[in-house]
Amino acid sequence: MERLYLYDTTLRDGQQTQGVQFSTDEKIRIAKMLDGLGVDYIEGGWPGANPTDSAFFEAAPATRARMAAFGMTKRAGVSAENDDVLAAVVNAGTGTVCLVGKTHDFHVTTALGITLDENLENISRSVAHLVALGHEALFDAEHFFDGWKANRTYALAAVRAAHEAGARWIVLCDTNGGTLPVQIGEIVADVIASGIPGDHLGIHTHNDTANAVAGSLAAVDAGARQIQGTLNGLGERCGNANLITLIPTLLLKEPYASRYETGIDRGALQSLVSVSRKLDDILNRVPVRQAPFVGASAFAHKAGLHASAILKDPATYEHIDPALVGNERVIPMSNQAGQSNLRRRLADAGLAVEKGHPALAAILNEVKAREDRGYTYDSAQASFELLARRELGLLPQFFEVERYRVTIERRRNLAGQMVSLSEAVVVLNVEGEKRLSVSESLDETGADRGPINALSKALAKDLGRYQEIIDDMRLVDFKVRITQGGTEAVTRVIIDSEDDAGHRWSSVGVSANIVDASFEALLDAVIWKLLHATLSAS
Amino acid sequence: MERLYLYDTTLRDGQQTQGVQFSTDEKIRIAKMLDGLGVDYIEGGWPGANPTDSAFFEAAPATRARMAAFGMTKRAGVSAENDDVLAAVVNAGTGTVCLVGKTHDFHVTTALGITLDENLENISRSVAHLVALGHEALFDAEHFFDGWKANRTYALAAVRAAHEAGARWIVLCDTNGGTLPVQIGEIVADVIASGIPGDHLGIHTHNDTANAVAGSLAAVDAGARQIQGTLNGLGERCGNANLITLIPTLLLKEPYASRYETGIDRGALQSLVSVSRKLDDILNRVPVRQAPFVGASAFAHKAGLHASAILKDPATYEHIDPALVGNERVIPMSNQAGQSNLRRRLADAGLAVEKGHPALAAILNEVKAREDRGYTYDSAQASFELLARRELGLLPQFFEVERYRVTIERRRNLAGQMVSLSEAVVVLNVEGEKRLSVSESLDETGADRGPINALSKALAKDLGRYQEIIDDMRLVDFKVRITQGGTEAVTRVIIDSEDDAGHRWSSVGVSANIVDASFEALLDAVIWKLLHATLSAS
Repeated sequence: MERLYLYDTTLRDGQQTQGVQFSTDEKIRIAKMLDGLGVDYIEGGWPGANPTDSAFFEAAPATRARMAAFGMTKRAGVSAENDDVLAAVVNAGTGTVCLVGKTHDFHVTTALGITLDENLENISRSVAHLVALGHEALFDAEHFFDGWKANRTYALAAVRAAHEAGARWIVLCDTNGGTLPVQIGEIVADVIASGIPGDHLGIHTHNDTANAVAGSLAAVDAGARQIQGTLNGLGERCGNANLITLIPTLLLKEPYASRYETGIDRGALQSLVSVSRKLDDILNRVPVRQAPFVGASAFAHKAGLHASAILKDPATYEHIDPALVGNERVIPMSNQAGQSNLRRRLADAGLAVEKGHPALAAILNEVKAREDRGYTYDSAQASFELLARRELGLLPQFFEVERYRVTIERRRNLAGQMVSLSEAVVVLNVEGEKRLSVSESLDETGADRGPINALSKALAKDLGRYQEIIDDMRLVDFKVRITQGGTEAVTRVIIDSEDDAGHRWSSVGVSANIVDASFEALLDAVIWKLLHATLSAS
Repeated sequence: MERLYLYDTTLRDGQQTQGVQFSTDEKIRIAKMLDGLGVDYIEGGWPGANPTDSAFFEAAPATRARMAAFGMTKRAGVSAENDDVLAAVVNAGTGTVCLVGKTHDFHVTTALGITLDENLENISRSVAHLVALGHEALFDAEHFFDGWKANRTYALAAVRAAHEAGARWIVLCDTNGGTLPVQIGEIVADVIASGIPGDHLGIHTHNDTANAVAGSLAAVDAGARQIQGTLNGLGERCGNANLITLIPTLLLKEPYASRYETGIDRGALQSLVSVSRKLDDILNRVPVRQAPFVGASAFAHKAGLHASAILKDPATYEHIDPALVGNERVIPMSNQAGQSNLRRRLADAGLAVEKGHPALAAILNEVKAREDRGYTYDSAQASFELLARRELGLLPQFFEVERYRVTIERRRNLAGQMVSLSEAVVVLNVEGEKRLSVSESLDETGADRGPINALSKALAKDLGRYQEIIDDMRLVDFKVRITQGGTEAVTRVIIDSEDDAGHRWSSVGVSANIVDASFEALLDAVIWKLLHATLSAS
């Protein structure tokens, strides 16, 4: 078995995705996720290029993976020692440093405006500088494939300069994403034939022709032994090679599975769906249903012929067992398999329902009807449990909502500044007794936290004899999604709550009115808490 | 130049996408779009399998492309003439008929439960029946690649049976999507070596390892001359090969562009973005920003180094000219961007600012500071323009906001149902004159559209002498994102607006209070509209 190395650049090239801007804290969370997955390298960013990246390296967590700082080769006219941009990268405190440099003659003269020889010297001196300081050096050969096509001799001279200066890895980058897999394979083979061994070569592709994964595989077929990519295929333009796709391909699919090993073990492979979803959560992106391996539709069998064959043997229409990557088979709700799925979910919630119980069909219908209106129960387990209990007649009525009113005002204060204040009134009927509560949106510091904050405080302010139960619960996360575009937009709110006992639960609300959607989710959160306190007391 | 044939199955396999269910009318619109694009074949569905597909063939538009009906080979125990499922397909009135059949021994015995010889006879008799009736016959060799790996002799015998019975095309299907491009190439070559000429072979791939496009190209490299795929890569599980990606790859990228021709001409190629978006419109899907060739980010250059080189020569970071596929270059604002990027953005907004102008640094600082607070200007060009004009002293003050108040109430109506109603009051000062406006959240049908709807109507209700300018503007999209998790959550709202002249612009607002964030974005939308009306009048 030959070893393949995985180099993640989610925190650097991934951040070039339009609309993506990680905070330092998010970078730390992602780095820990990557380390748990088992990649060999984590490229943390470009120290000195922006405050977030610099702050990340100062606060970077200890990882099993090698942490890499990214930068560029020194400029012409200064020594490597005196280049302040390079110094910021070298001083970030990582064992590994990756420098990008030009290998395409057109870019040397057009974008940099220096001579071809000056560029070779910049590469050579920069890499030698890293090696002299004891760093593991990578050279990202920018535009290598386009450069090779335009001036093969120069492109090869550029990567040889890095190799001879002591770079551990020369990473061949298809920066513009336009080189097709067959050509990538031919060009990588030519580089190896020219004298750089494959176990010193990496591949960095982009998805501009939807071939980033195939291009990476073609480079491995030709002999390259390091792959650069990102989680969920984030990255400049159409994205980088998607490690979430490449990892199971390398571990599970032939001819790769029996030829190569990586740093990822089978246990980590099962976390793949969860890693992919967590990144979407951090970015508040809707997970791509059709994503290979990890998408909610990746093992969904809609065609009738497929679904019936799957019941006989899943191998008939599945290229791998979905459990290997932490995913699940999805069979249309209407048939038998839908019901056995449901029974398993109910059992997870402590509800044993026998096969064929009429409530099963009723619950499935209700879930489907609500999902059509924008609800989702995948990530709102508490609301799912309440829905099922309602159909099963197993949900006590703790209280009734009579009405609520929220007022949001924005006006000038005495100092002439525009300030906002929200106020919420909630009227409940708790065991026959009417209870009016009012709260406002200011926190301890006097800052306005908005109408949902005021509403959640008013709802939880006076529940009569249940009040004690909910006193330790708090709202820990709040996610909003518009589930249809345009003026017919419907808002879906998902609320995560927790309590002092360490329980954490999620509830969902949907409405054209964002305050209503939030109130519905808040209400489910409170009822779930009351239900479980009652269940554990009895 | 050799001819490649494109076979579209959006209306059949594309309909297997989870959540997709075309109406007959939608199928007709899509068929016309496909015909305008220039594909060779349009597979319209499975007549007899469901009412929509049957209705489509009855109402199918006349097309330059060949219309194909899809079905399956006859069952064992009945003759082709007496198989009613096959009869419905044959009678759909299309010149071309495509029948799927088994080629993997495991499926013949497990899914069909018949003998291997019976299956060969079913294939042979069904194809011969089509040919005898004067149809052009295609045979979709289901699970061919898995079948070849399990029992090469039988898989080859199955496709040979179809070929010898007179099938014009034998389409090798990687039904489960698990075969990687290298293997696809090897197996297609083996089929050709076994005696079926490449110009009788098609390829049908799925995207379960993100290699559907690469697998199709590998089959063409090996000699296959028909490609099956779908628009936007719709299809069962992870989707089929995406024709929207394959078409520009075949027409524009080497080694394909100089070797092959298709039925698509350069003019149709320029409609690619519009075809892709129209399909999303029909499905009410948000277009994928990172989609190769046609995505809004496909030619977006976020990295500062890339953006500055693009200004010198677009070829530095673009693999094709975006105009060839009807797309556009985007240089987004972000805190990674430099001053040259900024000047380019300002120039796009009609603001020529000379190099080194002190306002440039001020604008960048303001953008960075706001992005740290959760704003994003990548996708909110209108707010960016207003911010820049404020720094440049080029933004007239059209009116002032004195205050606003929004009330959201939910209570029981006379019929005992819980109903919601929002009301918004906005107080403006327009050229020294105070103007109070009030609106509520009900639409024409009496449905509650929520507090933001009420607020946007009140804000746009009475702008004095500017009122006429904004009368034709409307809110077309509303996106909400929580930019920090937990109780310190900050809400970002992006609003897309448009007017009767066809302008479309996006604005952003950020606040802990979602109503405030929305109001800020609404305000920018109105001011941008006033500004541009003023600019074009002067």
